Amino acid sequence: MASVDLNSDLGEGFGAYACGDDAAMLGIVTSANVACGMHAGDPEIMAEIFARAKANGVAVGAHPGFPDLWGFGRRRMPFTPPEIERLVAYQVGAAQALATYAGHRVTYVKAHGALANLAAAERAVADAIARAVRAVDRDLALLAIALTAQVPAGEAAGLEIHQEIFADRGYTEDGQLIARGQPGAMIESAEEAASRVLAMVKSGAIVTAQGTRLPTPIRSVCVHGDSADAVATARAVREKLEGAGIRLASFRA
Amino acid sequence: MASVDLNSDLGEGFGAYACGDDAAMLGIVTSANVACGMHAGDPEIMAEIFARAKANGVAVGAHPGFPDLWGFGRRRMPFTPPEIERLVAYQVGAAQALATYAGHRVTYVKAHGALANLAAAERAVADAIARAVRAVDRDLALLAIALTAQVPAGEAAGLEIHQEIFADRGYTEDGQLIARGQPGAMIESAEEAASRVLAMVKSGAIVTAQGTRLPTPIRSVCVHGDSADAVATARAVREKLEGAGIRLASFRA
Amino acid sequence: MASVDLNSDLGEGFGAYACGDDAAMLGIVTSANVACGMHAGDPEIMAEIFARAKANGVAVGAHPGFPDLWGFGRRRMPFTPPEIERLVAYQVGAAQALATYAGHRVTYVKAHGALANLAAAERAVADAIARAVRAVDRDLALLAIALTAQVPAGEAAGLEIHQEIFADRGYTEDGQLIARGQPGAMIESAEEAASRVLAMVKSGAIVTAQGTRLPTPIRSVCVHGDSADAVATARAVREKLEGAGIRLASFRA
Amino acid sequence: MASVDLNSDLGEGFGAYACGDDAAMLGIVTSANVACGMHAGDPEIMAEIFARAKANGVAVGAHPGFPDLWGFGRRRMPFTPPEIERLVAYQVGAAQALATYAGHRVTYVKAHGALANLAAAERAVADAIARAVRAVDRDLALLAIALTAQVPAGEAAGLEIHQEIFADRGYTEDGQLIARGQPGAMIESAEEAASRVLAMVKSGAIVTAQGTRLPTPIRSVCVHGDSADAVATARAVREKLEGAGIRLASFRA
Repeated sequence: MASVDLNSDLGEGFGAYACGDDAAMLGIVTSANVACGMHAGDPEIMAEIFARAKANGVAVGAHPGFPDLWGFGRRRMPFTPPEIERLVAYQVGAAQALATYAGHRVTYVKAHGALANLAAAERAVADAIARAVRAVDRDLALLAIALTAQVPAGEAAGLEIHQEIFADRGYTEDGQLIARGQPGAMIESAEEAASRVLAMVKSGAIVTAQGTRLPTPIRSVCVHGDSADAVATARAVREKLEGAGIRLASFRA
Repeated sequence: MASVDLNSDLGEGFGAYACGDDAAMLGIVTSANVACGMHAGDPEIMAEIFARAKANGVAVGAHPGFPDLWGFGRRRMPFTPPEIERLVAYQVGAAQALATYAGHRVTYVKAHGALANLAAAERAVADAIARAVRAVDRDLALLAIALTAQVPAGEAAGLEIHQEIFADRGYTEDGQLIARGQPGAMIESAEEAASRVLAMVKSGAIVTAQGTRLPTPIRSVCVHGDSADAVATARAVREKLEGAGIRLASFRA
Repeated sequence: MASVDLNSDLGEGFGAYACGDDAAMLGIVTSANVACGMHAGDPEIMAEIFARAKANGVAVGAHPGFPDLWGFGRRRMPFTPPEIERLVAYQVGAAQALATYAGHRVTYVKAHGALANLAAAERAVADAIARAVRAVDRDLALLAIALTAQVPAGEAAGLEIHQEIFADRGYTEDGQLIARGQPGAMIESAEEAASRVLAMVKSGAIVTAQGTRLPTPIRSVCVHGDSADAVATARAVREKLEGAGIRLASFRA
Repeated sequence: MASVDLNSDLGEGFGAYACGDDAAMLGIVTSANVACGMHAGDPEIMAEIFARAKANGVAVGAHPGFPDLWGFGRRRMPFTPPEIERLVAYQVGAAQALATYAGHRVTYVKAHGALANLAAAERAVADAIARAVRAVDRDLALLAIALTAQVPAGEAAGLEIHQEIFADRGYTEDGQLIARGQPGAMIESAEEAASRVLAMVKSGAIVTAQGTRLPTPIRSVCVHGDSADAVATARAVREKLEGAGIRLASFRA
C-alpha cells in the first residue's frame, strides 16, 4: 500500500449554522465529501468549500443525503429506490455545477448518513445510488463503506469503486460497523483510532472488535468532521500514517 | 423568419400539487423551461418532464428561481448578485443531471419570476445569472426577455442569446412588459394573443400598446403554462403561426 | 341519531398551489379540518379558511400532520412518539392562534394522512397525539377514525372523543379501512357513497365489505376535499342524510 | 429603578445545529426570547427551552421572525403587513402551545432580526405585529426596542409595552442602534458593556455615542445569546447591576 486517502464530511453547515472546523480539516484530509443542500449545506457553503478544497489540493466528492435538514440526514426517510435515484442525481448535479463554478471538479460520490446506512444494508438502495451516479456521469467514482452492499452495487453499475474504513468506529465479525450505542461502537481516543487505522491499512484488512482480520482493499479512511475532537483525530491519523511511510493521497489522484 | 420557438414554464408542481397541464403543453411547445426545485418542481417532477419532453421532441431549459416555494418564486428575495450566481449554478447543475438521467439534455437557461424580472431591470442581477451559466457550462444558451438587461448581460458573458416575447402581455413604449395590474397588461383572448404574436414575429418587431414597432430579433414566444386558458392560448398561437407558414422549432435545434 | 357531522380536510393548498374547492366545500360540510403548515397549508391559507368557516357557521379543527410538504403528509416519517407530541402541540397552537386571529375557535383535533394511519394502528402514536392535545388544551375534542387505537388513546387521556366513518372507503371485517390499492378500497360513485353513509348512520354501525354490521357511535362522516368529485360526493352525502331526516351539525355544536 | 429584566434570544438552534450556550444563559437571564421554528428553532428545541426556563424561573416570550431558516431571519423578506400579521400569529400560537405543553407560559412577544428592525423603522410593520399579538392574546406584553416605532404601535394596540436596550450596541443621537459595520456599532468588551448598561439603567436614559442622555423607561436589557462572548457578557452585566443593588427580574414578574 503506497498511499491511502483520508476523507471527511465537510460543508455541513447551513446558513448561519456552522458545523465543524472545515478550514482546519481542509489542511489535513485529501478528500472532502461535500453536502449538497438537502440534509446540510447550501449553495454559498458549497461554493466556498469547493474553492477552498481546490486551493488546498483536496479532492471533492458529492455527498448526497435524504432531504431532511431537520434530521441532518440521519433519519431513514421512506423513499423508494426509484425516488432515491432522482434524489441522488439532483444532488450530484448541483454539486458538480458549483464545483465547476468554483474552479474545481467533483470526482466521486459518497452517500450520507441514513442514506449511506440503508445502502450498506440494502442492495436495492445501493443499486439506486449507483444507477443514479452512472446515469449522471459514469466517470464519477463511488466511495463505498467497505464490505457492504455498496461495493457490489457499484461494481454492477460499472463504476470505479473505492472502499473506506472509519477511523473512530469498531467493527463486527462480518466487517460491519458496530451500531452506535453498542459497546465498542466508538473509538474515543485519537491515539487509539490512529493506531487502529495504521494497523488496518498496513495489513490490508479490517480488524474486528474480536481481532479477526478481514482482508479488504482499503483505499480511504473516513474521519468525522463534526465532533469536538475531529481535528485532533484527523491529525493523529494523518501523522501516524505518514510516520509509517504511507503517503496520503486522493484515491482519484 | 423561417422558424420561431414556442416556450412555456413546465414542471411547476411540487409533490402532490399540480400546476398546469404539462402533458398537453408538451404536445404544443417546442421548448420547456423546467423548474429546478427551489421555487417549484422536485426531483420526481423534473425527471418526468425531462423524459416526456425527450419523447415529444421538445427542447429543455433550466428555469431557476428564488428559493421560495411558498411564494412560487414571485417574491423579490433579498439576495446579492454573488449569492444569485450560486443559486443559479446550483439549480442549473441539478437540472442538467436530471435531464441526463432522463435521457435528455439541458440546452438553455431562462430565469423565473421575480428573479427574471430583477434581471430584466437590473444589469447586476442579469450579469450574475449570465456569469453563473457561463461558469457552469458555456455551451448553454440564455433565453432572455427581449429588450431587457438580460440581453447585454448574456452578450457580455459570451453566451448564445435568444430573445423572447410574451404572447399574453402588453408592451410599453420602451418594449418592457406593462406591469400586471395596469391597463393593457394582460391579453385575455387567445385569438387576440395569437394574432399579436403573428404580427410581431412576421414583422420582427415588438408592437407596443400604442402601436409603435420596436425591431427585435424574436426567436421565441412564451406562453404561460399555469393559467386556465394556457393550453388554448398555446394552441391558438401555434396554429396561427403555422397557418402563416412559420415553422415552430426550438431556437437550439 | 338526531344529527351527524360532515367533515372534510380543507386549507390543503400551499402558497400559489390550490388543492380542492374549499369555498364550495365550506357550503356543504359542518366541520373543517384545517392543515397547519407542516404537510400543507400556510398562515395565509389558514387565516382565510378560519374566517370563511366562521362566516359559514362551520366548526374548525386543527389537522396536524408530519412535516413533509413534499409528501403531503402521506409518507410515514420516522418520528418517535415523544417527537410526535411536540409536532402536534406546535401545530395545534399555531391553528388555535390563527383561528382566534380570524374570529373563530378551534374546537377539535384530527390527525392527517400518515400520522393518522399510524395513530390508527399503533397505540403509542395515538397516545402521543392525545397527550399533546390534552397538554395544550384539554377542552379540545379528538375526532378519531372509528374503531381504531385513536379511540382508547383519547379516552385514556380524558379527552372528549368522536368517531368518524369515511364516505368513500370500504371496510374490513374488523372495521378498518381497506388499504388503498386493494379491491373494494374506494367507493367511486357519489350515489353509492351517500347510500352507504346513510345506512351506516341510521343503523349506528359500520357495514363491512362483506355486509357485517359493527355497532359504532358514528358522530361524523368524512368526505374528501381534494378529489375531482369531492364536491359532488359531499353534496350527495349531505342531501341523502337530510332527505332521511337526519340533521347535519358539528359534533361540538 | 428597583429592578430590571435581562433578556436573550435562546433556542436558536435547528435539529442537529446548535447556536449559543442556552443552558448557561438560562442561569443568567430573567427572560428568554424563544425562536418559533420559522427563522430558527424546532418543536423539540422549543419544548426543551420552555421546560428548562420553567425550571430556572426564567420568563419566556415568543420570538417570531421571517420564515427564513437559511438567512436566520436576518434578511428583509418581502412580506406585506397583513401577511406579517398572520406570520406572527402563527408563531405566537405555536410557542404558546409548546410552552403550555412544557408546563410554562408565554407572557410576552419580541420580534426577531430583520422583522424587528423593520418594525423599529416602519410603523406599518410595528402595527402589524402589535395587531397580531392583540388578536391572539391581549394579555401578552410586547418587548419593544426602546424609542422605536414598536413602542407607539404597541400602545395603539392597547398592549402592555416594555422597552429594552442592548448591552453591546452603540446608540445614535436619536436613540437608534448604530448600524452594524459603522464605527461604534458594537461594544466589544464585556466590562464596558456592563458599565454602560449600569449607567443607562441607573439614570433611566439611553446614552448615545456622543454622550447625550435620552430619558427612557428601560425595563429590560438584551444580551446576545449566540456570540462567542455571550455568556461572559451576560454574566458581567448581571453582576454589575446586582453589585449596584439593582434586582434582576422579569418585567412581567
